[in-house]
Amino acid sequence: MTKIKIGIIGAGRIGKIHADNLLRHPNVELVAVSDLFAGPELEAWAAARGIGILTKDSSELIRNPLIDAVFICSSTDTHVPLIRQAAEAGKHIFCEKPISMSIDETEKALEAVKQAGVKLQIGFNRRFDHNFKRVREHVAGGAIGEPHIVKITSRDPSPPPRDYIKVSGGLFMDMAIHDFDMARFVSGSEVTEVYAQGGVLVDPVFAEYDDVDTAIITLKFASGALGVIDNSRKAAYGYDQRVEVFGSKGSVSIANDHPSTAVVSTESGIVSDKPLHFFLERYMQAYADEVQHFVDSLVSGAPPAIDGEDGLQAERIALAAKLSYKLNRAVKLSELNELRREPAAK
Amino acid sequence: MTKIKIGIIGAGRIGKIHADNLLRHPNVELVAVSDLFAGPELEAWAAARGIGILTKDSSELIRNPLIDAVFICSSTDTHVPLIRQAAEAGKHIFCEKPISMSIDETEKALEAVKQAGVKLQIGFNRRFDHNFKRVREHVAGGAIGEPHIVKITSRDPSPPPRDYIKVSGGLFMDMAIHDFDMARFVSGSEVTEVYAQGGVLVDPVFAEYDDVDTAIITLKFASGALGVIDNSRKAAYGYDQRVEVFGSKGSVSIANDHPSTAVVSTESGIVSDKPLHFFLERYMQAYADEVQHFVDSLVSGAPPAIDGEDGLQAERIALAAKLSYKLNRAVKLSELNELRREPAAK
Amino acid sequence: MTKIKIGIIGAGRIGKIHADNLLRHPNVELVAVSDLFAGPELEAWAAARGIGILTKDSSELIRNPLIDAVFICSSTDTHVPLIRQAAEAGKHIFCEKPISMSIDETEKALEAVKQAGVKLQIGFNRRFDHNFKRVREHVAGGAIGEPHIVKITSRDPSPPPRDYIKVSGGLFMDMAIHDFDMARFVSGSEVTEVYAQGGVLVDPVFAEYDDVDTAIITLKFASGALGVIDNSRKAAYGYDQRVEVFGSKGSVSIANDHPSTAVVSTESGIVSDKPLHFFLERYMQAYADEVQHFVDSLVSGAPPAIDGEDGLQAERIALAAKLSYKLNRAVKLSELNELRREPAAK
Amino acid sequence: MTKIKIGIIGAGRIGKIHADNLLRHPNVELVAVSDLFAGPELEAWAAARGIGILTKDSSELIRNPLIDAVFICSSTDTHVPLIRQAAEAGKHIFCEKPISMSIDETEKALEAVKQAGVKLQIGFNRRFDHNFKRVREHVAGGAIGEPHIVKITSRDPSPPPRDYIKVSGGLFMDMAIHDFDMARFVSGSEVTEVYAQGGVLVDPVFAEYDDVDTAIITLKFASGALGVIDNSRKAAYGYDQRVEVFGSKGSVSIANDHPSTAVVSTESGIVSDKPLHFFLERYMQAYADEVQHFVDSLVSGAPPAIDGEDGLQAERIALAAKLSYKLNRAVKLSELNELRREPAAK
Repeated sequence: MTKIKIGIIGAGRIGKIHADNLLRHPNVELVAVSDLFAGPELEAWAAARGIGILTKDSSELIRNPLIDAVFICSSTDTHVPLIRQAAEAGKHIFCEKPISMSIDETEKALEAVKQAGVKLQIGFNRRFDHNFKRVREHVAGGAIGEPHIVKITSRDPSPPPRDYIKVSGGLFMDMAIHDFDMARFVSGSEVTEVYAQGGVLVDPVFAEYDDVDTAIITLKFASGALGVIDNSRKAAYGYDQRVEVFGSKGSVSIANDHPSTAVVSTESGIVSDKPLHFFLERYMQAYADEVQHFVDSLVSGAPPAIDGEDGLQAERIALAAKLSYKLNRAVKLSELNELRREPAAK
Repeated sequence: MTKIKIGIIGAGRIGKIHADNLLRHPNVELVAVSDLFAGPELEAWAAARGIGILTKDSSELIRNPLIDAVFICSSTDTHVPLIRQAAEAGKHIFCEKPISMSIDETEKALEAVKQAGVKLQIGFNRRFDHNFKRVREHVAGGAIGEPHIVKITSRDPSPPPRDYIKVSGGLFMDMAIHDFDMARFVSGSEVTEVYAQGGVLVDPVFAEYDDVDTAIITLKFASGALGVIDNSRKAAYGYDQRVEVFGSKGSVSIANDHPSTAVVSTESGIVSDKPLHFFLERYMQAYADEVQHFVDSLVSGAPPAIDGEDGLQAERIALAAKLSYKLNRAVKLSELNELRREPAAK
Repeated sequence: MTKIKIGIIGAGRIGKIHADNLLRHPNVELVAVSDLFAGPELEAWAAARGIGILTKDSSELIRNPLIDAVFICSSTDTHVPLIRQAAEAGKHIFCEKPISMSIDETEKALEAVKQAGVKLQIGFNRRFDHNFKRVREHVAGGAIGEPHIVKITSRDPSPPPRDYIKVSGGLFMDMAIHDFDMARFVSGSEVTEVYAQGGVLVDPVFAEYDDVDTAIITLKFASGALGVIDNSRKAAYGYDQRVEVFGSKGSVSIANDHPSTAVVSTESGIVSDKPLHFFLERYMQAYADEVQHFVDSLVSGAPPAIDGEDGLQAERIALAAKLSYKLNRAVKLSELNELRREPAAK
Repeated sequence: MTKIKIGIIGAGRIGKIHADNLLRHPNVELVAVSDLFAGPELEAWAAARGIGILTKDSSELIRNPLIDAVFICSSTDTHVPLIRQAAEAGKHIFCEKPISMSIDETEKALEAVKQAGVKLQIGFNRRFDHNFKRVREHVAGGAIGEPHIVKITSRDPSPPPRDYIKVSGGLFMDMAIHDFDMARFVSGSEVTEVYAQGGVLVDPVFAEYDDVDTAIITLKFASGALGVIDNSRKAAYGYDQRVEVFGSKGSVSIANDHPSTAVVSTESGIVSDKPLHFFLERYMQAYADEVQHFVDSLVSGAPPAIDGEDGLQAERIALAAKLSYKLNRAVKLSELNELRREPAAK
């Protein structure tokens, strides 16, 4: 079988994870990596992995006729132009979330993908996690009947640095976007309305950027089900990623994964391991599996299970959450077009 | 020691539970019971327990000079007149929740209690549950730092009958009121704002009475913390009563209690017991302990830990939740005076 | 209904527990208590409970014609003579375990009970524990198929005082005897062979009395199943009482009970409650239920579920374990008659 | 860095697992595989992996001067001659357990290894399992004080086929040998005495080969600690591999691993996943890690953590267990020399 030739744009933390998963893949050849900050360090990294091309110029990579598909792992503001460029060059695309922070821009990117007839997969890696997948399977298989309440807990072990906060797009767009996708995934229903409450309880730096670090987000689904997400930028005990779907026949819930099942019982209590520390530990296998899925999709010709529409919908929910928080009232997704045209509410 | 003489008004399910706990108490004499529907059945019940006086007339019981304290376990609409009557007669009072469905009425009852200088304890039995108490102790002891998020799950195993739904005051006032009290109890902070989302997913009968059977209620506390309660009238697997308080140093959470710790592992899965079925099973000991607390309070002269103010605050939150649901926007408790004066919103 | 009149012989810790459970029983009158060390303290205790007769003389109690049944809670060496005396006086008997430390003596006591036609229940309280009962129900109901392996963990939170060790009869007779009964109870099969290995790891005082503080005891059942018990006189984290029955279709196991289900998650780990501290906490309800069962048996005329034969069999296993430990080889219960006649092995 | 050249002898299930782990290793080149039954199927397997040499002749592989180290994954009866041959050829050796079923033979193999000065690692993969490692770390770190009781549960999901049973060496040598190594590993102490009780409860086929399918094995350690292993060839709910070490300051225990943490709660109970099905699923990462350890050892020159002595000791315990079962008495490991010389006991 001819190997699929892939290029990666953006060799930050997540780009490197994808690189290593692609390198381990028997049917893939990772031919090129581009990064604005390519220098001696990245050169050593690429050399150790036998990656032939390292460039600062993503266009060069996209124009390379050998390359079948690109992974867009650069900063969010570059996603839309890169998707459009790659689509026009006939490359299949794996793009990190979110596609953009503007619904209009995202729609333009999706239009370009559609016109070019290339595949686009969005990096909602959690859908590939063994636990979340199992929840979806139980819900889809009818084990809990009709979903009534979807509950998602999503808390990071520690807040990102100030520089990241500044450009993150805010908790709703940057962090909760994974949870919005998860809500759609496990419930199998579209979100129609959002109410978001938030606070700055972890670190005052978030207030400086008009952001929150703690949030409770209520969702209403087209099916009539309700949902709630709670987010925090800092869980002292580590990465906390749980979900429960409660329905007419019962509930399915998942707990965190842990480094071991060891329980130590002494005079001072019964102590078990903290959860796997953060997303790299928790989702290591999920990252490999999403790459596998993308490659399978290219090989089989079947559309990827997580496409541009999924990216768009999660962004729409995130935008509604931002607006809801500002307006302190529930916001219907159907209102978005109208609200987007008005000057931002106080 | 002279025994404390107690009379019970209303010998329904909860009145009978209190009766049996009082009868087991070494320092208490249960001298009288009144019930509008006293008849042969109740007579047999009272006789088997050696209760000397059984009457249809609560006034007779309240006027009885032998009686030190009354338990008001009759229907909610009778609470306020009975509290006022009992207070005027100088009786200490244990009253089931809610005091009333009207803030004005409740305030009048509390005023009467204050004028008379009698003790009033409200039947928020869950505060005496070993699990919830332990959460409060951990929070108060600083184990989790400053509370950031309070999460309460409160689901009944099956909906009440139509006749009950009709007069219940609705999910927010009837069912969630326990959770509103719990939110105040475990967080140690007052609720300042409420947003309630609800749906009729369990049984259309709730819609007939302008009620919901499923709800997600977001709370904001004076401390800045956020809270969320999820309610359902029907959890197929039984009574589900859990709470988690998440704070700056970590979290404390409790699971349900179960009939046994038995786990059966077979080819078809790993199966453990469903939770204790309903409130009688789950809170059996809590009911005994709240009675013990009331008696202790009468003996020691110390005020009961759960007083009229606690009853009033829970009702105010419930009212705000009802209004929020109708208005589909967050409602501040400080708005209540104003909103109460307007005609009910659509 | 006429109340059943009961007398208690021996008002130590366990005698007092039975007293309080009997006092709470609506169909029972606790008319007398005897204790060799009756003095001002016990007098106050009895007075506070309205117990009419307190005596040092157990014979006086046994001869009392008003009394229907006696609870024998005095030291083990008094059990056999008291059982014989009570049986001859036509009293029903509840006797603490073990009946005696001599099979011959125990057999004599059982013969007296048989001759007199009175009821005898042995204080194997753990059979009434909600968890152990559930295991038995699952096994008896066929949930795990044919039992293959029975595993019992039984560890005390701390060793008894020297004075108790001196007269306890040793770990196998004093502590493991509960586990031998449990092994018969949960498996539904008789033990036919025992191998006991032990050590002095907790406190050298046990060696002084030719006793052990740690043991692993292998059992063989008539059904062919195998069993293993592990005992320790000191579990730093508290009372550890678990059982697992593994069979052809799967397994059933129980965990300890805990004061609460609270889990505290912080930077230093995930911490849950230690088990209920010791037998008084763990088996509080089981003690009440065994008394209830005895009373029910007297009322209904049905034989108690735990009778003299159960006491005898547990003692025979304990004796085999003692011999096995000394001989360092497996001992068949069928060898006991022979081995008993020989001088004790080294 | 020059890659380490490795050859595998025996391409059965376990040989293939090692092959794939070696192929994924960046510092290793898998140059040759030998298998008695090499044919078209194995050729295809080798070709797909780019393995240059496939032969039926293990000697050819051992003599190959390019090869630095061999993995011996052929049947147990070939281990000793192959170890001796490989050692003489100066190859480092990874050998599956057990080295042999004869202490004398094993000692000869170890002598050859010693003379040649090559490295030998035994395939006790479980020492690399994240859970068992964590137990060892807690014990070694003093978390539970001095070990008093070591408990190991080791049950297979289903018995092996008759052909395997015939040559397996029996439950004690084939299955429990992993547990004997684990007992030494987690306790940090040598086993000095063994008592084994067994039964044929799963399938009568085991009796045909003088084998058992169910066993309880009591261990005594040089430290004074006691141990117990329970084995079954068939756990209906899947692979059951747990350990608990109980000591003067508490205990550490591990549970099984599961495909997901999902819990489904419905009217029929609270159901969670069965354990990972069998050793391939449970120990997938441990197999990779033991290969990594072996390679690290070759690179660094440090001796492997699991060496020939570990293989020998586990075999000695297994032999003692076999003898104990036959003699129905405890067998000291110091008796082995003597007992081996006698005709096998009945």
